[in-house]
Amino acid sequence: MRLALDAMGGDFAPANPIAGVVQALRAYGDFSVILVGDEERVRAELSKHDTRGLDGRISFHHASQVVDMVDSGIDSVRRKKDSSVSRAIDLVKEGRADAVVSSGHTGALVAAATIKLRTLPGIHRPGLAVVIPTETQGFLLLDAGANIDPSPEHILGYAIMGSIYVREILGTQSPRVGLMSIGTEASKGNEFTRECYGVLSKAPVNFVGNVEGHGLFSHPVDVVVCDGFVGNIVLKTVEGLATSMFRWLKREMKISPIRLLGAWLARGAFLSIRKQTSTDEYGGSPLLGINGVCIKAHGNSSPLAIKNAIRVAREFVFQKVNARIVEAIEQHHEEVSAHQVK
Amino acid sequence: MRLALDAMGGDFAPANPIAGVVQALRAYGDFSVILVGDEERVRAELSKHDTRGLDGRISFHHASQVVDMVDSGIDSVRRKKDSSVSRAIDLVKEGRADAVVSSGHTGALVAAATIKLRTLPGIHRPGLAVVIPTETQGFLLLDAGANIDPSPEHILGYAIMGSIYVREILGTQSPRVGLMSIGTEASKGNEFTRECYGVLSKAPVNFVGNVEGHGLFSHPVDVVVCDGFVGNIVLKTVEGLATSMFRWLKREMKISPIRLLGAWLARGAFLSIRKQTSTDEYGGSPLLGINGVCIKAHGNSSPLAIKNAIRVAREFVFQKVNARIVEAIEQHHEEVSAHQVK
Repeated sequence: MRLALDAMGGDFAPANPIAGVVQALRAYGDFSVILVGDEERVRAELSKHDTRGLDGRISFHHASQVVDMVDSGIDSVRRKKDSSVSRAIDLVKEGRADAVVSSGHTGALVAAATIKLRTLPGIHRPGLAVVIPTETQGFLLLDAGANIDPSPEHILGYAIMGSIYVREILGTQSPRVGLMSIGTEASKGNEFTRECYGVLSKAPVNFVGNVEGHGLFSHPVDVVVCDGFVGNIVLKTVEGLATSMFRWLKREMKISPIRLLGAWLARGAFLSIRKQTSTDEYGGSPLLGINGVCIKAHGNSSPLAIKNAIRVAREFVFQKVNARIVEAIEQHHEEVSAHQVK
Repeated sequence: MRLALDAMGGDFAPANPIAGVVQALRAYGDFSVILVGDEERVRAELSKHDTRGLDGRISFHHASQVVDMVDSGIDSVRRKKDSSVSRAIDLVKEGRADAVVSSGHTGALVAAATIKLRTLPGIHRPGLAVVIPTETQGFLLLDAGANIDPSPEHILGYAIMGSIYVREILGTQSPRVGLMSIGTEASKGNEFTRECYGVLSKAPVNFVGNVEGHGLFSHPVDVVVCDGFVGNIVLKTVEGLATSMFRWLKREMKISPIRLLGAWLARGAFLSIRKQTSTDEYGGSPLLGINGVCIKAHGNSSPLAIKNAIRVAREFVFQKVNARIVEAIEQHHEEVSAHQVK
């Protein structure tokens, strides 16, 4: 597997992407990497690491520009043609790489991937699929922000793609799909979710109906589909609240020596939850529906998160997730056509 | 102050509404209550409590029906004319009560209040305003689900009403208002939030821009406005995740005796956070914009939550929140007209 790594994207680039890929090269022997970005800075950063034995698996591709967080996604593709993320996508388009990992600007990755690689046959819009950990096992939320104003057909695509991803990568057979809404009955929600409910009821997925905010954590499903606006709000609200609760607990624990002692004795409990909810462990979120493999890592990714994003990219390529998606979509369209002929 | 209490609404009715109002009658000497619901059941429930000295402040209003959770809000008003929530609203309409408290069906309360009491002059839709506690002080979220498909003008009304409520009831001068969106820049979000951003930028409130899910808990504002679909999802996601995290921590603490001991030593920290985040403490969520005082208590309200919802109803009446809202809306419209004449 040949990986194009956006070495300049993210809050801690190039340090963390480089540190993460070195960890990944040591952990997985089955891939090589092209480091995309300002070659001088990338080489300087890489020289801080021990790369003995890895040199044959590392190459460089210069890109002179970096997308800023203030750039709009589409503009970044048009105006910064030599950005690290655009160049990394170009390498996939030209067949010189099999997958891209980037912790940079989400909008830029989505725009560059959609424009340059296009979507899979039968899929009209990509969706960002993020694993949200819970006390049981977690669920896949999509779309988490790639497509702000989708149609019900796009949501159908997310349900199919999410189910395949969960089955192939996370190993859950017959994943349950829920539609993010308010109220569990089919009649609840807004006009858009009611339309989606109708479409999903006839879809070749294990659709279990609407899921509410409470239900995400008490009766979790495996795949939660929604528009990218709602999905992004849910994702960031969950991340924000979880971070805040840990911070708040820490502050409360520091109030007295007795509490501090208690916290120390019970530290295993906190560490266990922190580990299970760490974005570092999940690492990468696939942009599903792109005719190529694009994994988005969190903007503040640690080296471990980058390493795990690379693990996800490898699994995505080796499990041939895109081929599975294309098969499922084709089969669905054939069934719909056959039904219409009858 | 004369309160009409929906004695039959909620998951634990009539037990908890009755127990809560008895607590409130003892705590606050400045109100009387009309218990609305099946009179026989209500009297039987009340007889379980010591009401010595309170009898002159308690009266009854029979209502033969109860709205079920499966009823739609509008249908419940049309078909269940003798429901406890509709009858309680009728008492306000007829001038026989100053405020309603209900822990029943939100949609039924919103529909009955909107149809029977109408909205305040200059306000076109009511919004449900819920206090969400945070590690700093909490924020008011509205709309939390009364109005699924609002216009930007409705959102403007929420910003004005929310600011007045926070100032008059929670005591925060010049409350900061944020618009729930994705991305903090004005250009981010969807078409609806971009329109709202423009309207709010010219509004007579302290508008500080978009707020994201992360920002709700790290740089909190005082009032967060959004459509009722997004607001309800945010509310329930926050409640669901917070409950889940406490449950998860508890399970992890029980894994070993050492952890259990630690948890016991540090119990003050957990209790402090639990108390500060308890919906019992906040009690009631006002339905802002109704020409009357309607307080929604959580469906699973404890007696303490009912008592605190009654506290909120009293404050709402005594602080003349609705008169303040009407003044602010009139002033805004005069300023807009004066501006247009120029």
